[in-house]
Amino acid sequence: MNRSATPVHSANVPVKDFLKTSYQTVRQFSHFLCEPLSREDYVVQSMPDASPTKWHLAHTSWFFETFVLSKEVPKYRSINPQFNYLFNSYYVQIGDRFSRPDRGLLSRPTVDEVYAYRRYVDEHMIDFVERSDESTLRRILPVMELGLNHEQQHQELILTDIKHMLSTNPLSPIYKNLAASTAPGRQVPLKWHSFVAGVRQIGHTGPGFAFDNESPRHKVYLQDFRIASRLVTNGEFVNFINDRAYSRQELWLSDGAKTVEEKGWGAPAYWHNIDGQWKIFTLHGLVDLDPNEPVCHVSYFEADAYARWAGARLPTESEWEVASEDSELKGHFAEEGIFHPRGMNEQSAAGINQMFGDVWEWTQSPYTAYPGFRPAEGAIGEYNGKFMCNQLILRGGSCATSSSHIRRTYRNFFPAEARWQFTGIRLAND
Amino acid sequence: MNRSATPVHSANVPVKDFLKTSYQTVRQFSHFLCEPLSREDYVVQSMPDASPTKWHLAHTSWFFETFVLSKEVPKYRSINPQFNYLFNSYYVQIGDRFSRPDRGLLSRPTVDEVYAYRRYVDEHMIDFVERSDESTLRRILPVMELGLNHEQQHQELILTDIKHMLSTNPLSPIYKNLAASTAPGRQVPLKWHSFVAGVRQIGHTGPGFAFDNESPRHKVYLQDFRIASRLVTNGEFVNFINDRAYSRQELWLSDGAKTVEEKGWGAPAYWHNIDGQWKIFTLHGLVDLDPNEPVCHVSYFEADAYARWAGARLPTESEWEVASEDSELKGHFAEEGIFHPRGMNEQSAAGINQMFGDVWEWTQSPYTAYPGFRPAEGAIGEYNGKFMCNQLILRGGSCATSSSHIRRTYRNFFPAEARWQFTGIRLAND
Amino acid sequence: MNRSATPVHSANVPVKDFLKTSYQTVRQFSHFLCEPLSREDYVVQSMPDASPTKWHLAHTSWFFETFVLSKEVPKYRSINPQFNYLFNSYYVQIGDRFSRPDRGLLSRPTVDEVYAYRRYVDEHMIDFVERSDESTLRRILPVMELGLNHEQQHQELILTDIKHMLSTNPLSPIYKNLAASTAPGRQVPLKWHSFVAGVRQIGHTGPGFAFDNESPRHKVYLQDFRIASRLVTNGEFVNFINDRAYSRQELWLSDGAKTVEEKGWGAPAYWHNIDGQWKIFTLHGLVDLDPNEPVCHVSYFEADAYARWAGARLPTESEWEVASEDSELKGHFAEEGIFHPRGMNEQSAAGINQMFGDVWEWTQSPYTAYPGFRPAEGAIGEYNGKFMCNQLILRGGSCATSSSHIRRTYRNFFPAEARWQFTGIRLAND
Amino acid sequence: MNRSATPVHSANVPVKDFLKTSYQTVRQFSHFLCEPLSREDYVVQSMPDASPTKWHLAHTSWFFETFVLSKEVPKYRSINPQFNYLFNSYYVQIGDRFSRPDRGLLSRPTVDEVYAYRRYVDEHMIDFVERSDESTLRRILPVMELGLNHEQQHQELILTDIKHMLSTNPLSPIYKNLAASTAPGRQVPLKWHSFVAGVRQIGHTGPGFAFDNESPRHKVYLQDFRIASRLVTNGEFVNFINDRAYSRQELWLSDGAKTVEEKGWGAPAYWHNIDGQWKIFTLHGLVDLDPNEPVCHVSYFEADAYARWAGARLPTESEWEVASEDSELKGHFAEEGIFHPRGMNEQSAAGINQMFGDVWEWTQSPYTAYPGFRPAEGAIGEYNGKFMCNQLILRGGSCATSSSHIRRTYRNFFPAEARWQFTGIRLAND
Repeated sequence: MNRSATPVHSANVPVKDFLKTSYQTVRQFSHFLCEPLSREDYVVQSMPDASPTKWHLAHTSWFFETFVLSKEVPKYRSINPQFNYLFNSYYVQIGDRFSRPDRGLLSRPTVDEVYAYRRYVDEHMIDFVERSDESTLRRILPVMELGLNHEQQHQELILTDIKHMLSTNPLSPIYKNLAASTAPGRQVPLKWHSFVAGVRQIGHTGPGFAFDNESPRHKVYLQDFRIASRLVTNGEFVNFINDRAYSRQELWLSDGAKTVEEKGWGAPAYWHNIDGQWKIFTLHGLVDLDPNEPVCHVSYFEADAYARWAGARLPTESEWEVASEDSELKGHFAEEGIFHPRGMNEQSAAGINQMFGDVWEWTQSPYTAYPGFRPAEGAIGEYNGKFMCNQLILRGGSCATSSSHIRRTYRNFFPAEARWQFTGIRLAND
Repeated sequence: MNRSATPVHSANVPVKDFLKTSYQTVRQFSHFLCEPLSREDYVVQSMPDASPTKWHLAHTSWFFETFVLSKEVPKYRSINPQFNYLFNSYYVQIGDRFSRPDRGLLSRPTVDEVYAYRRYVDEHMIDFVERSDESTLRRILPVMELGLNHEQQHQELILTDIKHMLSTNPLSPIYKNLAASTAPGRQVPLKWHSFVAGVRQIGHTGPGFAFDNESPRHKVYLQDFRIASRLVTNGEFVNFINDRAYSRQELWLSDGAKTVEEKGWGAPAYWHNIDGQWKIFTLHGLVDLDPNEPVCHVSYFEADAYARWAGARLPTESEWEVASEDSELKGHFAEEGIFHPRGMNEQSAAGINQMFGDVWEWTQSPYTAYPGFRPAEGAIGEYNGKFMCNQLILRGGSCATSSSHIRRTYRNFFPAEARWQFTGIRLAND
Repeated sequence: MNRSATPVHSANVPVKDFLKTSYQTVRQFSHFLCEPLSREDYVVQSMPDASPTKWHLAHTSWFFETFVLSKEVPKYRSINPQFNYLFNSYYVQIGDRFSRPDRGLLSRPTVDEVYAYRRYVDEHMIDFVERSDESTLRRILPVMELGLNHEQQHQELILTDIKHMLSTNPLSPIYKNLAASTAPGRQVPLKWHSFVAGVRQIGHTGPGFAFDNESPRHKVYLQDFRIASRLVTNGEFVNFINDRAYSRQELWLSDGAKTVEEKGWGAPAYWHNIDGQWKIFTLHGLVDLDPNEPVCHVSYFEADAYARWAGARLPTESEWEVASEDSELKGHFAEEGIFHPRGMNEQSAAGINQMFGDVWEWTQSPYTAYPGFRPAEGAIGEYNGKFMCNQLILRGGSCATSSSHIRRTYRNFFPAEARWQFTGIRLAND
Repeated sequence: MNRSATPVHSANVPVKDFLKTSYQTVRQFSHFLCEPLSREDYVVQSMPDASPTKWHLAHTSWFFETFVLSKEVPKYRSINPQFNYLFNSYYVQIGDRFSRPDRGLLSRPTVDEVYAYRRYVDEHMIDFVERSDESTLRRILPVMELGLNHEQQHQELILTDIKHMLSTNPLSPIYKNLAASTAPGRQVPLKWHSFVAGVRQIGHTGPGFAFDNESPRHKVYLQDFRIASRLVTNGEFVNFINDRAYSRQELWLSDGAKTVEEKGWGAPAYWHNIDGQWKIFTLHGLVDLDPNEPVCHVSYFEADAYARWAGARLPTESEWEVASEDSELKGHFAEEGIFHPRGMNEQSAAGINQMFGDVWEWTQSPYTAYPGFRPAEGAIGEYNGKFMCNQLILRGGSCATSSSHIRRTYRNFFPAEARWQFTGIRLAND
């Protein structure tokens, strides 16, 4: 199975071919991710931030139904009109929604019914694409690209939500065994790469797809800065822990110290100290900590405190984007099927490594609108804009992100205390 | 299938026969109740008070494993030692337990694995009974009877928990369709039955099984009292609602008025006013309110306020038990497979009707120890005694109780705000 | 100052004289209790269960204004009509009330304004009594007695609330220094007094005042029981603590174990272990624990667990009342001005000691209506009846109760987790 | 009394003179603000964000004691060593602190004792300044300026906290009557002032005092923008309300819509709709809404939604600071003693009006570190830096700010839901 067909159209492919191929590839990748699951695994919601797998599968179908089929196919009838209520996530202009933290209460529709819903939507979508002429297809291309990128985002959430759910189970269930051939990482020294001050440009422009929050491309003034040649590793983070840093309040933001105390944090999420040895719960089960792997599942508070402890700081998103221009858009992504960050295996690149894939990199930049930002008209405009408050920008994608989904200008965002994404640390300095 | 074999031994049956038959009958009834469920239905925990069906099936097996097999069968090995952690409910003397409100987080063990666990325990139990001599069987008879009655209690909880879970689903799923032959009730006038003051006796005595909290039988002094000839009906409760009783604080206990306000109650649980018509969510789906059915799913607060509004009061548990001596131990129980209270269908009995089955009847008696109460030694002693605080006694069993499970002396108990059991109202007066 | 004039009328005193004397005595005792307070002490509400002293002083005046002056004196005008909103405690039939947990937000009316309000009410009350004829006075005698007993209840609350408030202050402020002459207690062995089974009578009857919840006097059947000759002491309770009893869940009610864990209890309220020594915060400041003093500020949960640990149980309220008939109504009460329980200072009485005063004694009886209980008509009927749920009966009065306020039949009631009253333990047994 | 002596030193004044004068002026202004208070008003804490006046008076003294006297005066002894625990706000490097939300529990030290503490600190401070030589004074000048600016910040908090506290009282107490001569505002049309794109500089530099978070001065790139000539008025905000904007979720940030629903907001804080008329609670009591006054006590969420409704946006802090360079640092400040924003009373300025004073102006800029920001060493470094998360920048000062306290570069910060400061709205646009 070719899992990496990009959901973003490029000019030299016929639109119809592109739409059919990318639609089928992206939709099938959702099913591929669910193969290891038991029926019961699809149902559980282990925290309000997470959703049952079943819900992700249905919601991504609802998206195509609502924003394509209902608008473009006059005779289209939903398989069940109440699904519009159950599977709307947060589009208030579409109508009322089922309470988000209660998604785990819904035993019905069953998993089989959800797959039937997916097939029903898929058949109508393919049929609609088949029957449409070039001008229609060009018109709906943006919303199709959005829907496919949207499904890719939920594919990442399926993985992070399943990981969180399995982690609450004392049986430490394994999602999928790790291929025996996966090599461990090597220790690599951290170097600094310097950039000189000046007016630079960041943000998306040009013909390809991007989310609205990546635009418009605009000028920013950057001071001199330096950025680290690689991610912070587990081994380095153990040093931070061993230096009693979690209890040294002077290293933490005020809200961070409060969060550490309330939640009793003393290590990243999914770390377990068992008889003095660090173990990490992964999608391959509970494994020994590898000191050369990038540290993962840290909150912004922990990333910020680590940087302060290390005499550095986190990069701004502008700095990160400018620095990323020296790196190829390559890395360890979801298509590899490993779903865990990997240590560096060669000192290789004289350049900046691990910018893409492995872990999302916390920046110190709050999530705000770019100057001149305009969300789309109508419900689609709720996609990104209304969340621009009390969140931080993360960059670069993770081992749970599809490589075909990422861009240099891609802006992910989470609250400062979130740890359930594959989130890690890259240092910067003045 | 004979569903009603009593789990209480009587003298003229060989112990081995009784144990085998009653064990198999009771265990199979659990499976019978699960037949209508989808795999997904087994997993969900819709509130902290409820448990997933999967958990009930495992916990009742754990009970026999812990209190019989582990003690009586030296070579017995659990199918999975961690099940002792996952499926212990509240026996602190047995060891640590998985957090109760988090039972719905556990997708594993799967439903298949739980059924395998049941089969494993069943095989060992039957084998153990087969191999044991008469004196062993007589020795373990009390804990066997306790285990079977315990499973019957969880059978009732399976029904009430599934009902609650399905009720949270906007699709109003049907657990099981109602047999077409079920006749509606008739309107029957309420009469009063009088009892004269004096020293009476209540509580269990004699050779049969009873829970420890029903003993010892002891004297009480009762004043003159009267008790109603039947349960309060939906129609009568609608009058209470229409008289704006939910907002007339002078009718309510102080904690009751607070609860009504906090929870926004304006009708019993599972009642829905749709376009001016009352509908009731049942295990047969959403149905029209039948005014002659006993009102059900009311809290103690509502039962108490209704009684005050009606110029009456609730009976004490002593009054109820004394009054019940005039009634046969008959009624609408779980074995009927209807799982919903039923209206009276004849004016029949000149006596006191509906004392058993249909709905648990709130008494005004807090749940306390009988004089001279002694809980059993060891962990089994935690079964009842440690809950004697801030709960009220209910009597008579419900449409979700097995008839073979109930007794005149049976003491059920719930907190004043609980509405998810099949709970109703019988009036008393001075 | 004569602090102990009873607020309960006896037949051989002219009603007018009785009313004037008792009114003035009781009202002045409130002021006596406030003498040691700073202006700032009157304002603070240290928990939702407590009220600012200022509020108690105003509310008790509001009671006379609402239930006497407003009804009996046609031209009476309140000093401020909004006080009816601010100082109504819980009488829903009187109208809306200011939110109880927010009483500490009210800096106004100031303390001076509250005293002015008291003077205003007092002048109108005395004037009204002076001007009224015998028949009017006889008619209002019950509500006057209620108002005076009500003020005495709030006097006790002033003390317990001030104690709680001062205890939250790291400066450990002293309410009032203890007189140097107060002698410490002596160690006295605990003996058991036996009572034989039979029908007995409990509850109030006869011409004097009692709260409605003490009536009607009625028959109860008591089994054989024994009751302890004295209260449990601090020294005995230290043994309970040293036996690790707070963490032995098998000694506790289920709700009790949960409360102990949630609140982190390891000793009675106001106990502090400082460098291995027990200190107790009292209204005289922080003092060394006296092992012979009655243990105080324990919850029902702790009293119940202590009794179980000691191989005994708590008495029922019927047992307590029957046992109390052998004791004189004497003890250490608020009029002594010590406001702390005292150790026994002689082996004296061969009988049952410390039944009255020192500490309220938890019984195992939930607070319920006596058979035939009828609350008064109208708002006054809310005084006691609506609280008959999820509370336990306490008997005998405390060192913060006026001796003129107590009776053998007196029923105090608090939730199982309350520790801020002067509450202690007397054991019983079968 | 001259209330406006600046707490910021300028080169041509002898340091000793400056320190004595500014210290005494600033400290006395705290007392001036307390003159209208009753003793009881000093004690209450009406929400966790607020502190009792008594606490502000003590904490600002503790600041001088801790950061000046304890370090500079070897023999200095605190009046009470426990005050270091009670009156430390959040300096973790100084030691443990009394729980912030519990400050209202402390009736002691009394108000008199707090004033005695202030006098004690003042005497030692003045004595220390008198006795010190020029080089010592120059060395401590920065911390003295910080202490004085710190006290000015708490003066503003005294006003906002007292306002909040009085507002919870149904008696609507008046802090201070408004001078009869205060003229109402006039309606003035809103105009837009344009700025062209380019590299600009913001932030503090130069010899005078500024908080650490205002530095370093640095370059930013601004796009073309426009800024409104005046603040949004009450009348304009009433139009927003009347357009049902509070319930139109598409106008709100996601967190904003959630907050509006949870808190039941339908108007700014302190607004009351009484019989269809808007009244506003002010420090002069409850007054009629003046449509020409700047709207005040709105959260960031409301400011943001208003801007979206008006087809505009909020300015960034860089835009605000650049735009402010055209305005004189003049406006309605605390020294006027009015403590309420005022309407414009002339169309006067062709320029940008009301940039300073009246209300703090929400910007769309999250509170982050300026590039190159370095907090001070030691506990003083906790002053600002550790709060750089989940807060928004406000600019320009308010009617409760001292004019001698404000600067163009001044950065105030509050969470998005805060409404208890004097916060208002200025629009911007692209």
